[in-house]
Amino acid sequence: MVERRSQVVLGLDPDPAALWPVALSGPAPADPTEIAELTAAAVVRHCRAAIEAAGPACVAVKLQLACYERLGAPGWQALAETADVAREHGLLVIADGKRGDVPVTARAYAQALVGTTAGPYGPVWGLGADAFTANPLLGSDALEPLTSAAAVAGAGCLCLVRTSNPGAAELQDVPAPERPLHERLARLVDELGRDSLGASGLSSVGAVVGAAQPESLAGLRELMPRAILLLPGVGAQGGTVATLRPAFSPHPAAGLVTASRSIVDAHRRSGGDPAASARAAAEELRAATWAVAG
Amino acid sequence: MVERRSQVVLGLDPDPAALWPVALSGPAPADPTEIAELTAAAVVRHCRAAIEAAGPACVAVKLQLACYERLGAPGWQALAETADVAREHGLLVIADGKRGDVPVTARAYAQALVGTTAGPYGPVWGLGADAFTANPLLGSDALEPLTSAAAVAGAGCLCLVRTSNPGAAELQDVPAPERPLHERLARLVDELGRDSLGASGLSSVGAVVGAAQPESLAGLRELMPRAILLLPGVGAQGGTVATLRPAFSPHPAAGLVTASRSIVDAHRRSGGDPAASARAAAEELRAATWAVAG
Repeated sequence: MVERRSQVVLGLDPDPAALWPVALSGPAPADPTEIAELTAAAVVRHCRAAIEAAGPACVAVKLQLACYERLGAPGWQALAETADVAREHGLLVIADGKRGDVPVTARAYAQALVGTTAGPYGPVWGLGADAFTANPLLGSDALEPLTSAAAVAGAGCLCLVRTSNPGAAELQDVPAPERPLHERLARLVDELGRDSLGASGLSSVGAVVGAAQPESLAGLRELMPRAILLLPGVGAQGGTVATLRPAFSPHPAAGLVTASRSIVDAHRRSGGDPAASARAAAEELRAATWAVAG
Repeated sequence: MVERRSQVVLGLDPDPAALWPVALSGPAPADPTEIAELTAAAVVRHCRAAIEAAGPACVAVKLQLACYERLGAPGWQALAETADVAREHGLLVIADGKRGDVPVTARAYAQALVGTTAGPYGPVWGLGADAFTANPLLGSDALEPLTSAAAVAGAGCLCLVRTSNPGAAELQDVPAPERPLHERLARLVDELGRDSLGASGLSSVGAVVGAAQPESLAGLRELMPRAILLLPGVGAQGGTVATLRPAFSPHPAAGLVTASRSIVDAHRRSGGDPAASARAAAEELRAATWAVAG
C-alpha cells in the first residue's frame, strides 16, 4: 500500500458483451457448455489485460462475484484464475459478494472466501481473498463467523454501512429510532472489529461507505476510527476524491478508493487503446487519492 | 404444490464432512483440484439421495449457495447438477443466496439466477431457478432488477424481511422510527410485487420470514397480502408449524415451510438409515403443514 503509494482498487466487473478486443478469439461453438467455458476464458484474458494495464497504479483488485458467477462453474473458475493473476501482479484481492446469512451459513461463506472446507477426501481450498464485502442486515451473530474467519486468515471483512446507490437512502438512512440506520451499522462494525487490530492500528473489520455521499463520511469515520473504508462511487457514480479526506485520517491505508468502469471502460469515453486509457485513468486516480490521503 | 399436497421445502445445505455414507466412494486423491472435484461429486450424490428420499413429500428444494460455492468451480457445477436432479423429480428450485447489490450488479445476479448473459459467443445460461432469496438492505432501486427479472422469468424473488437468527433483532426489529425495520421491509416487498400477480393472486415478489418468531407473522401477512412467504426456522431452530397459519391465509400456496437439517440429518437423532429417516421426517412435516394450511 504505502510502497505502491496507492489507495486505488481496480474494480473488475467483467461484462462478457463488452470485453476488450484483445480478449476475444476464435469462432463461436454450438454447445452451451463450450460457450460458457469460452466466454469465461475470454473474461480471464480481459481481466488479465486490465490488471497488466491499470494494476501498477493500484493496490488491490475488487472482483465483483456476480459478474463471474453468472457464467456458472466456468465463471467461478475464471474468478479463481483472475485472483491468481492479481496476486502474480502483487495486488491484494477483494472478493465483492456482499454475502450475509444466518450463522451456520455465514461459516460456509467464510470457508468459500478465506478458508477451507473439510471433507471426506481432505480440505478444499476457498478463494483465498485478502478481504471480502459482507451484508450486515442479519445482525452481529451472523457477521461474527465472517469477522472471526477474516481475523484468523489475516484478511478483512468489509461490511456495508452506506452504499452508493440512490435507493440506499430508503433503508440505510431511516431514523432508527433517532439516528440513521447506517450509524447503527457503523457502530456494529466498530464493535466487531475492536479485538482484531493490526500493526497499523487498523482493524480486520472494515466498512463499505459510498463515496457519492461525502456529507456523512466524517461522522462515520468518527464512529469507526479503526476501520478500513472501502469507498465505491468515485467516477461513474459521481463522487470525487477531494471529499474523501476523512477516510484517511487514521492512516494512509485506512481508505481504499475503488473504481471499476471509470478505469476499465475509460477508452469508451476517451477513444483509443483500452489498455493505455485504463493505465492513464488508474494513474490519475492514484495520484489524486495519494494527494488527498497524504 | 396443490397436486403434491405439500408446502414443504427440502433445504439442502450439504456439509462435505457429514455426507450420507452412500455418497462416499474411492480413495482420497493428492491433487487439490481432484479433491475439490471428488468432493463436489460426492455432494451431488448426497443431494440426489436426499431428494429421492424426502422429495416425494416436498414441493421444492432450497439450495444453500454458500455450501456449494465453498467448493469453488466444482461446487458451482454441483449446484447446477443438484438443481437438475431436483427438476427431474418434479421439484421447484429455490436458490438461497441472499444476494443484493447496487442496480448494475443486481442485474448480474439476476442473470446468474434466472436469466442469461450475452457474450461474444452467444448467451450463457444461468441457474434457471424457480425462485431465489434476496437481501433488501440496498433499497428498492437495487431490488428492482431482481424483481423484474423474476417476473420476466416467471420466477419468484423472496426478500429477507425477518430472518430467524437471534441477532436479527438488532437491526430488523429496531424502531425505524416508530415501527420495526422489518415492517418497512415488508412494505417494500408489497410495493415491489404489486404489478406481478399470478393466476393465484400471489405475487412474484415474496418474503423470507423466520418461523421462530411467530408473534410477528400475522402482522407481516397483513402488510404483504400477496406475497409468498418462505418460512425457515421450523425444526432445528425451534419454530413449530402450528403457529404458521397466517402465512397460508391468502392461499394454500402462500407459505413454504423450509427445513434442512431436521430432514437431512434426521438419522443423527433417530438412528437408522439416513434415507428412511429423511423420508419420514419430510412426510411428517408435510402432513403437519398441510393440516395447518388447509
